[in-house]
Amino acid sequence: MKALVYLGPGQKDLRDCPKPTLVDATDAIVRMRKTTICGTDLHILKGDVATCSPGRVLGHEGVGVIDSVGAGVTAFKTGDRVLISCISACGRCEPCRKGMYSHCVHGGWILGNSIDGTQAEFVRIPFADTSLYPIPEGADEEALVMLSDILPTGFECGVQNGKVAPGSTVAIVGSGPIGLAALLTAQFYSPAEVIMIDLDDNRLAVAKSFGATHVVNSADGKAAATVMTLTGGRGVDTAIEAVGIPATFNLCEELVAAGGTIANIGVHGVKVDLHLEKLWSRNVTITTRLVDTSSTPMLLKVVHAKRIDPQRLITHRFELARILEAYETFGRAATTKALKVIIQA
Amino acid sequence: MKALVYLGPGQKDLRDCPKPTLVDATDAIVRMRKTTICGTDLHILKGDVATCSPGRVLGHEGVGVIDSVGAGVTAFKTGDRVLISCISACGRCEPCRKGMYSHCVHGGWILGNSIDGTQAEFVRIPFADTSLYPIPEGADEEALVMLSDILPTGFECGVQNGKVAPGSTVAIVGSGPIGLAALLTAQFYSPAEVIMIDLDDNRLAVAKSFGATHVVNSADGKAAATVMTLTGGRGVDTAIEAVGIPATFNLCEELVAAGGTIANIGVHGVKVDLHLEKLWSRNVTITTRLVDTSSTPMLLKVVHAKRIDPQRLITHRFELARILEAYETFGRAATTKALKVIIQA
Amino acid sequence: MKALVYLGPGQKDLRDCPKPTLVDATDAIVRMRKTTICGTDLHILKGDVATCSPGRVLGHEGVGVIDSVGAGVTAFKTGDRVLISCISACGRCEPCRKGMYSHCVHGGWILGNSIDGTQAEFVRIPFADTSLYPIPEGADEEALVMLSDILPTGFECGVQNGKVAPGSTVAIVGSGPIGLAALLTAQFYSPAEVIMIDLDDNRLAVAKSFGATHVVNSADGKAAATVMTLTGGRGVDTAIEAVGIPATFNLCEELVAAGGTIANIGVHGVKVDLHLEKLWSRNVTITTRLVDTSSTPMLLKVVHAKRIDPQRLITHRFELARILEAYETFGRAATTKALKVIIQA
Amino acid sequence: MKALVYLGPGQKDLRDCPKPTLVDATDAIVRMRKTTICGTDLHILKGDVATCSPGRVLGHEGVGVIDSVGAGVTAFKTGDRVLISCISACGRCEPCRKGMYSHCVHGGWILGNSIDGTQAEFVRIPFADTSLYPIPEGADEEALVMLSDILPTGFECGVQNGKVAPGSTVAIVGSGPIGLAALLTAQFYSPAEVIMIDLDDNRLAVAKSFGATHVVNSADGKAAATVMTLTGGRGVDTAIEAVGIPATFNLCEELVAAGGTIANIGVHGVKVDLHLEKLWSRNVTITTRLVDTSSTPMLLKVVHAKRIDPQRLITHRFELARILEAYETFGRAATTKALKVIIQA
Repeated sequence: MKALVYLGPGQKDLRDCPKPTLVDATDAIVRMRKTTICGTDLHILKGDVATCSPGRVLGHEGVGVIDSVGAGVTAFKTGDRVLISCISACGRCEPCRKGMYSHCVHGGWILGNSIDGTQAEFVRIPFADTSLYPIPEGADEEALVMLSDILPTGFECGVQNGKVAPGSTVAIVGSGPIGLAALLTAQFYSPAEVIMIDLDDNRLAVAKSFGATHVVNSADGKAAATVMTLTGGRGVDTAIEAVGIPATFNLCEELVAAGGTIANIGVHGVKVDLHLEKLWSRNVTITTRLVDTSSTPMLLKVVHAKRIDPQRLITHRFELARILEAYETFGRAATTKALKVIIQA
Repeated sequence: MKALVYLGPGQKDLRDCPKPTLVDATDAIVRMRKTTICGTDLHILKGDVATCSPGRVLGHEGVGVIDSVGAGVTAFKTGDRVLISCISACGRCEPCRKGMYSHCVHGGWILGNSIDGTQAEFVRIPFADTSLYPIPEGADEEALVMLSDILPTGFECGVQNGKVAPGSTVAIVGSGPIGLAALLTAQFYSPAEVIMIDLDDNRLAVAKSFGATHVVNSADGKAAATVMTLTGGRGVDTAIEAVGIPATFNLCEELVAAGGTIANIGVHGVKVDLHLEKLWSRNVTITTRLVDTSSTPMLLKVVHAKRIDPQRLITHRFELARILEAYETFGRAATTKALKVIIQA
Repeated sequence: MKALVYLGPGQKDLRDCPKPTLVDATDAIVRMRKTTICGTDLHILKGDVATCSPGRVLGHEGVGVIDSVGAGVTAFKTGDRVLISCISACGRCEPCRKGMYSHCVHGGWILGNSIDGTQAEFVRIPFADTSLYPIPEGADEEALVMLSDILPTGFECGVQNGKVAPGSTVAIVGSGPIGLAALLTAQFYSPAEVIMIDLDDNRLAVAKSFGATHVVNSADGKAAATVMTLTGGRGVDTAIEAVGIPATFNLCEELVAAGGTIANIGVHGVKVDLHLEKLWSRNVTITTRLVDTSSTPMLLKVVHAKRIDPQRLITHRFELARILEAYETFGRAATTKALKVIIQA
Repeated sequence: MKALVYLGPGQKDLRDCPKPTLVDATDAIVRMRKTTICGTDLHILKGDVATCSPGRVLGHEGVGVIDSVGAGVTAFKTGDRVLISCISACGRCEPCRKGMYSHCVHGGWILGNSIDGTQAEFVRIPFADTSLYPIPEGADEEALVMLSDILPTGFECGVQNGKVAPGSTVAIVGSGPIGLAALLTAQFYSPAEVIMIDLDDNRLAVAKSFGATHVVNSADGKAAATVMTLTGGRGVDTAIEAVGIPATFNLCEELVAAGGTIANIGVHGVKVDLHLEKLWSRNVTITTRLVDTSSTPMLLKVVHAKRIDPQRLITHRFELARILEAYETFGRAATTKALKVIIQA
């Protein structure tokens, strides 16, 4: 089968690989229909993810059809259409019992990382019963690809951890795909204001069209002052970090109101300064999280009820044969204006 | 009247001052019976608290008797015995409505800071109705002095923010008075393990007698490794920072389990390193808080029910006339083994 | 001044009464601009509310302008425009400290009940600092009248107690003003489905236009079966009782899913059957509540942000001089299609 | 093998039955070491549980040793010592994902009900990975039998649902085994007062020795008045119903304070009167629950940490061969003073 293979820092190729086979009784083999590329895939390609070795098939998102299942799989059978969670969950370890699937003792984020992933014609999914979701009749498969990772990530790490609430004030630092996913899902809770902050006016325009009440270009270094003006000097109840560098985290520290929350989504490569000499008395909460995808059942319901339209995140489409071009397009988002790209297997 | 007056960095004296008088309709004048000294008073004396000017009467804890009340005070009358909260709360601003009295727009921590405090024969208490508590018949006044600040601080900032729960594992870094207050109140929730960490074996021995299940002297620089061994490599559900320096906060970062919480109590003077390059995916929560004393009514009940004995924190007693000696004793705790000192007005 | 006076069961009149005067230091006198009539006023007129004696000026909702304030009032001054909460809260008793203002030891629902109310040219408001809210510049006063009682009631007693959540399924039994207020505010949380149940097709049509996803006329006695079909046999996550009679509460018992919540809003005059022989093992929660108006600050924000339009509840307008006609119109809602009527003082 | 078999209302016997065999890949066969008898077993014997047919082996509690496991079981192997949960949980259905294992679509309370149970030499356990718990080295097996059902039931249905909290006031109506389990686990949260109510002075004496702060014999019909006196007229924050008849539920309605919770544990056979004409405005919460045993991992930790001693609930011990005598003893608890009886297989 064809698959996108990581070949070491800076290197990847679409290659012929053996079709995966069932290993454990709880496995399923899924024939991929649609997948996508994540910012994390770019991190791997930079060589930043030590757990991912050369030779690995990338990808941890997508929808497909069950090709075969192991003896221990009871919830799915051949031919079932399924949504693949980016997190593999055994469902029985202590973290899984708490719904913290991201820290599953036997799984977690392993797809396209420590085991082969979804940017391929077929993929082996461990713990199929607790890592796949049935696709409802009539559902839009492209939209559901956004439920593998980006929407639960924006929602769980940003919105839920950030305690967005009716009438509250939210700032989202970073208007890329993940920041926009937080913006879309923040609106589940009817905040009074959502202020989007980025360096790119195009992305801010997208944010405005997605429901941001205010947009702030931080290129002038005055974003914190602008937000303070917008909030009458209070700061925001929730500051969502959706970039992953010290400058944006520090901006969140400056924006957050007394009693507020900084919800980190960004993947950080270096430490940041935490200004406890100012924050120790400010009653703030800071959260970090690798997405658990515990919100997937809920997201399936709100998509079905048309309370959210994940299609809005999709800007480009490619056949699997042209996945290198898809990477190129996604990697140069500033010029291509790409948000999420769909790859059809 | 006699009062302990701050005279600028490193300087203080017991002086004759005018007895305070009612200023606002919501004020009460309280004749002090017992007060104490807080670590924060030592911070002021170092010149670290910019809001506190020379000439200020120090102290924000204590019990006393109502001497007079303003026209707007309805809950108290002359002769009532009262517990003084270290936080003055107007009860009507937005933070007060949320129970975040520490950030009261008109009050907060002002006693012995921006207005004269309790280490005196009399003190003016603003917003008396919402900043004083009636002392129940038969209550031990000395024990209640511990409810002005130290017990709510340990409980709210450490235990409550730290989400201590039945069966959970807790580490408290710092076995001084505030860490011990966290230790005492953590036991309200029956954690399975409370590991106390300090450099001082005497304080660790006290912690053991107060209910710590394990004590770790961190002088050898191996505290993190020791705690990992004690927790089977998991780390702790709750790490409480009760010192206020970068090294102890960093230790908390190393100790906390995936999904756990770092609850900061310490008063920090400089920034700390936050290792988001490790923690971004660990699902941790970090909290800061200036005590709200919203737990005071609950603490009065548990003291009354004898579920906790605040007297255990009291090591020394002095008359107000000897308050300079009390400061001396409290300031050299390593040698005097002082925890909290009672000053009788 | 003119005021609508309760004269005993079935009797009321618009009469000349003395203008109220300040009694306590915490009082304000408010010159009414707009008020409205509540279903509870009709209960009083039936003689069902024992705490309300003949001679009482009715009404507990409205907006106005501060005429004068007592010495202990610090948040308001003459000329300020204010929203009146239907709940008077002292702000210092134990229930008030918990935000349960409805059970304020010194207040609660007293306006137009045990003290004179708002259907008058002037009203005395006790505990003004904690029972009035400033009206923001440019706000629509008519819309804000809906924040005195009906919107916080629908939200707190129905939506908040009912734990309405993104993707959840909600049934609201009763599509009168209070059920519609629950419907409007339920949408703050993006439920997947809101099923409205009533006997009146007109009210159901209104519900549909207000955002109900399904409407069910229960006249055929098959509402429970219909809802079960709509929910695939599961029942609803949240059943909101917005009528106040045994039949509608029993319907909620039949509709609620395992793990779900019945949130009672209705004012009940007689006991109901609780089928614990069926429900004991169903993991359900049943809540009751007299509105606390603790959500008023939040509601002011969502109205200001235009996340909700309270004007949609207003169907009729009258001058105070014609208040008897307003009562007539509101009392015969089935034919007049009245929801809320505005009375201009 | 020997097993206690239900033979229809009023009839049971110890019989020879075939040893169970593996049916599904997720099954385990457990050789029983210790089991016990539950009040629910007596309900079955009265013919009150329609899902339990004659011929059924009773029992849903116990500890044992893994005899064999199916191909899909990954967490246990032959020879492992295990604690059996009374609830069988598939771990993958929607209720299981929420931790509401009691309503597992494929399991729930089926042991000794719709499938053969634990009062036997061997038992088949479905969904072994998510329905068994490893027994830690050195644990007291008898004590752990109390973790199969009675302690999680008292804790989850009574204490957790009842929101017992530090300083709160609790009344438990019914001082039988389940009420005592609630009493023991309520103390995890350091309530100020736990008032135990029963008709039997012996059981009240046991309650006192287990930590009740007050005991009330309700034989005089004045229990509500007595509790009101004890609570200064307020009522209790939490009223736990641990009997299952209308009179005791009604007593809870009379005892609960405004803002409080009634947590039902009792298995009810008939409906009860819910006095909404009084309670509609009292801000109360009423909960029901079939135990989920989601608290089992926590309970294992508190037992291991010796924060609770489940042995206190055990009054009698029998060999399996004498199980009829054990039933006799348990059934006549008023005279035998039996709480829980251990049956050794």
